[in-house]
Amino acid sequence: MRMVDLIEKKRDGKELNTEEIQYIINGYTDGSIPDYQVSALTMAIFFQGMTEKERADLTMAMVESGDQIDLTAIEGIKVDKHSTGGVGDTTTLVLGPLVAAVGVPVAKMSGRGLGHTGGTIDKLEAVPGFHVEIENEEFIRLVNENKLAVIGQSGNLTPADKKLYSLRDVTATVNSIPLIASSIMSKKIAAGADAIVLDVKTGAGAFMKSLDDSKALAQAMVNIGNNVGRKTMAVISDMSQPLGFAIGNALEVKEAIDTLRGEGPKDLTDLCLALGSHMVYLANKASTLEEARQKLEEAIKNGSALKSFKTFLQSQGGDASVVDDPDTLPKAKYVVELPAKEEGYVSEIVADAVGTAAMWLGAGRATKESQIDLAVGLELRKKMGDFVKQGESLVTIHSNQEDIEKVKEKLYESISLSKENVVAPTLIHGEITE
Amino acid sequence: MRMVDLIEKKRDGKELNTEEIQYIINGYTDGSIPDYQVSALTMAIFFQGMTEKERADLTMAMVESGDQIDLTAIEGIKVDKHSTGGVGDTTTLVLGPLVAAVGVPVAKMSGRGLGHTGGTIDKLEAVPGFHVEIENEEFIRLVNENKLAVIGQSGNLTPADKKLYSLRDVTATVNSIPLIASSIMSKKIAAGADAIVLDVKTGAGAFMKSLDDSKALAQAMVNIGNNVGRKTMAVISDMSQPLGFAIGNALEVKEAIDTLRGEGPKDLTDLCLALGSHMVYLANKASTLEEARQKLEEAIKNGSALKSFKTFLQSQGGDASVVDDPDTLPKAKYVVELPAKEEGYVSEIVADAVGTAAMWLGAGRATKESQIDLAVGLELRKKMGDFVKQGESLVTIHSNQEDIEKVKEKLYESISLSKENVVAPTLIHGEITE
Repeated sequence: MRMVDLIEKKRDGKELNTEEIQYIINGYTDGSIPDYQVSALTMAIFFQGMTEKERADLTMAMVESGDQIDLTAIEGIKVDKHSTGGVGDTTTLVLGPLVAAVGVPVAKMSGRGLGHTGGTIDKLEAVPGFHVEIENEEFIRLVNENKLAVIGQSGNLTPADKKLYSLRDVTATVNSIPLIASSIMSKKIAAGADAIVLDVKTGAGAFMKSLDDSKALAQAMVNIGNNVGRKTMAVISDMSQPLGFAIGNALEVKEAIDTLRGEGPKDLTDLCLALGSHMVYLANKASTLEEARQKLEEAIKNGSALKSFKTFLQSQGGDASVVDDPDTLPKAKYVVELPAKEEGYVSEIVADAVGTAAMWLGAGRATKESQIDLAVGLELRKKMGDFVKQGESLVTIHSNQEDIEKVKEKLYESISLSKENVVAPTLIHGEITE
Repeated sequence: MRMVDLIEKKRDGKELNTEEIQYIINGYTDGSIPDYQVSALTMAIFFQGMTEKERADLTMAMVESGDQIDLTAIEGIKVDKHSTGGVGDTTTLVLGPLVAAVGVPVAKMSGRGLGHTGGTIDKLEAVPGFHVEIENEEFIRLVNENKLAVIGQSGNLTPADKKLYSLRDVTATVNSIPLIASSIMSKKIAAGADAIVLDVKTGAGAFMKSLDDSKALAQAMVNIGNNVGRKTMAVISDMSQPLGFAIGNALEVKEAIDTLRGEGPKDLTDLCLALGSHMVYLANKASTLEEARQKLEEAIKNGSALKSFKTFLQSQGGDASVVDDPDTLPKAKYVVELPAKEEGYVSEIVADAVGTAAMWLGAGRATKESQIDLAVGLELRKKMGDFVKQGESLVTIHSNQEDIEKVKEKLYESISLSKENVVAPTLIHGEITE
C-alpha cells in the first residue's frame, strides 16, 4: 500500500476501506507516514468528505492508536457527556451529581485546557482541598460507591487524534465535519464510554455558527457512535448568548450548587434536565425519557442531587461545607457592577466577547503557561429579552485588578439594547437520537 | 501574513494576490514554510484552481526563487521549444539545426533525466567526441556564430519548482493544470527564453491523455507566457502512437539526420515544420507563418539544415562525418526483426509500452544511477493505419543482449492488428496562439 495512492483515491472521491484507513492512522502515529502526506489527505477530505463507514473506521483507528480506558470494573452502563464548547457552560458540574443521584455511574476523566474559563478540574479545585490525583483503583472504587468521581487525564489516549488535530490546526483543515466528528468520538470511546450524550452548541458563541452545520455535526457523531456500538444521541442547544449567568471558576461552582438546589438559572436547569434525561435513559435507569426527567426533578427537589455533590467533593478531599456556605469559595477583591447606559431590551450578548472579557480578568488560560485566578469572572444580571432600566446592572464583575476599564469597554461592546421588545432565543433547537 | 490563512483563502476559492504568492514561494524555498502546509495548499489548488493572475504570479515567483540565465549577449530573439514529453520524440534534435539554418538563435540548455530514452545531451553524445562541457562565454560565442549550441544545465534554476514538484509527486497533486503550467513555464523563463513554442502531446502515450486536458494545459501555458511578457504559442500534437520510427539514442540521431536531409518519417517532418514555423515567426525571421514554413522547407532542400547540424556538432567536438556516414554511430550487436504473427492493419501502438521495451533494452534510465546504452533501441517498421503481411517485420530491435524474449513479448502486446481498414490518427490537433 502506498500513501500517495490513498491520497489520490480520496482526492478522486472514492471510499477508503478499513485496512487503508488503519494503514494511514498507524503509519501517521508511528511516524512512517509524514505530515505532508497527511495534510494533503485532510485537505482532500475537506473537499470530498467521508462516507459513514469511513468515519466509523477513522474513529476506531484513532481509538486503537493508543491506550483505552477499561471501565468494566464499574457496574452499570457508563454514559459520558460531551459538549462542543461554549461560554459559561456549567452543565458538567451540574450533571455529574445530578445523574449520579439517580444511580447513573459517572466516571469522568477531565482536563484543564485553554479557554475563557478553566476546565472541569480547574473549576472543582475552587473547592478547598479538592483534588483529582487519585489512583485508578480508587477512582473505580469511588464510582462504584458514590456513582461519581473525577480523575485527571492519564495514559496515552488517541495519540493519532492529537497529532492529526495539531496538523489540521496549521493547514486550514479543522473545519471538516467528518474530521471533527471522528476526533470527538474517538476521545470519548477511548475514555471508556459505553454510551454518549452530546451537547452540540449552535449560534454566535459556538464553534458551529449555523444551525445546519450544528445539526450535520450532531448527526455525524450520532451515526459514528451507533455504527461502532456505542449508543449515542445529541441535543442541539443554543449558544447565541452565554449559558446561565456565571462565567468563571468559583462562580460556576456556586451556580452549579444553586442549580442542584433547584435555584439555578432557567436555561442551565432546562439544558441539564434535557441532557440528564438522555443520560439516565441510555444508562437504563428509566424506561422512558419522561420517567428519567421526573427522577431528576425529584432528585433536585428531595436534596439527593445536592447530597451527591457533597459526597463526591468529600471523597476527593474537598471541603463539602461550600455547598451550604458558598462564601468559603475563593472571592475576588473587587466586585463591580456594570450599569446600563440607557434603558431597553437586551437584544444581543456576544458570547465570545463576554468570554474574552472573563479571560482578561484571569478566569481562563490564553496559553498553556497562563495561571488561572479561580475567584474572578462575570455574573450576567440580564439575558436576551430582559428589560433593563438606565443605571441598572447588566453584569457583576469579579476582579482582583483595580483597573478594569478594558473589561468594561469590552462588555459594553458585547451587550446590545433595543427599544423594541426582544424574544429570547429558543434553548433547545433539536435532538438527534439515531 | 500567516500561511494557514493563505491556505484557508485558497481553500475557500478566493484569489491570492502577488505578495501572498511571493510570501509562499519565498518561505517554501528558504524552509520557513514547511512541506505540510504547502501540500495542503496544493491540494486546495487541485480543487479550487488558480486564476490567470495567480498562475502568472506563481510562475514569476518560482523564476525569481533562484538563478536566471542571462542570454542578452546573444543577438536576436531567443525562442525556446518545450515538449510535454512522449515516446520517440526526436523533434529537438531536428529543430535546433533546422531553425538555426534560417537565422533563429538556439541557445539550448538541456539535461539527461529519466525516461524511455536519454535526454537531448545523451542522444547527442552518440556522436563520437561531442560534448557539452563548455564555458558560458564559449556557449554565447557559439550561438552568435553558428546560431546553435547546447550546454548542460548549471546554476540553481527554479529551486522552488524543484521542491514543489517533489512534494506534489508524493501527495497526489501532480495532476493540476495550473501547477503543471506554472512549473513548465517557470523553467523556460528562468533559462532565458524571450519567446516559447510549446509542443503539448495528447493521447495514450502522453501525460495528458484527453484532448480537452491537453488543450486546457496548452491554453494555460500560453496565457502565462503572454501575461508575463514572453510571446508563447502551443501546438497540440498526437501521441496516441510513438512519433517517427526510432526510439533510442543513436537511432534517433540517425533519424534526425534523415529528417534534416528531407528523408525522415512524415509525422516527425510535419511536426518539426509546424513547430519550426512558429519558432521562426516568433523570432521575427519571417513575417508570416507561411513564409516561415517555406524558409524551413528550402533549408532542408538546399542542404543548409544539414550543414547547420554538421557545424554545430564540429564546434562542440563532435565527429561531423556521422552526418554523411551514420554507420559510424554506435551500433548494437544484435539486430532482430519482430515478424507479424498474422496479417492486418495496425490499429494500435501503445506508446508507453513500446517506450518501456526500449528502456528494457537499455536505451533509457529507470533510475538516476542507470547506465544508458546509446546503441540500442527500436525502429518501428509500421505505424497506425499501415497494412502488414504475416511474417513481415513490425519492429527492428537493436539489442546488446542476446535474450530479448521479454522485449518481444512486450512489443507484441503493444501492437494490435485489425482486419478492418484503420485510419491513421491526425498528427496536429490544434494550435493555440493567444
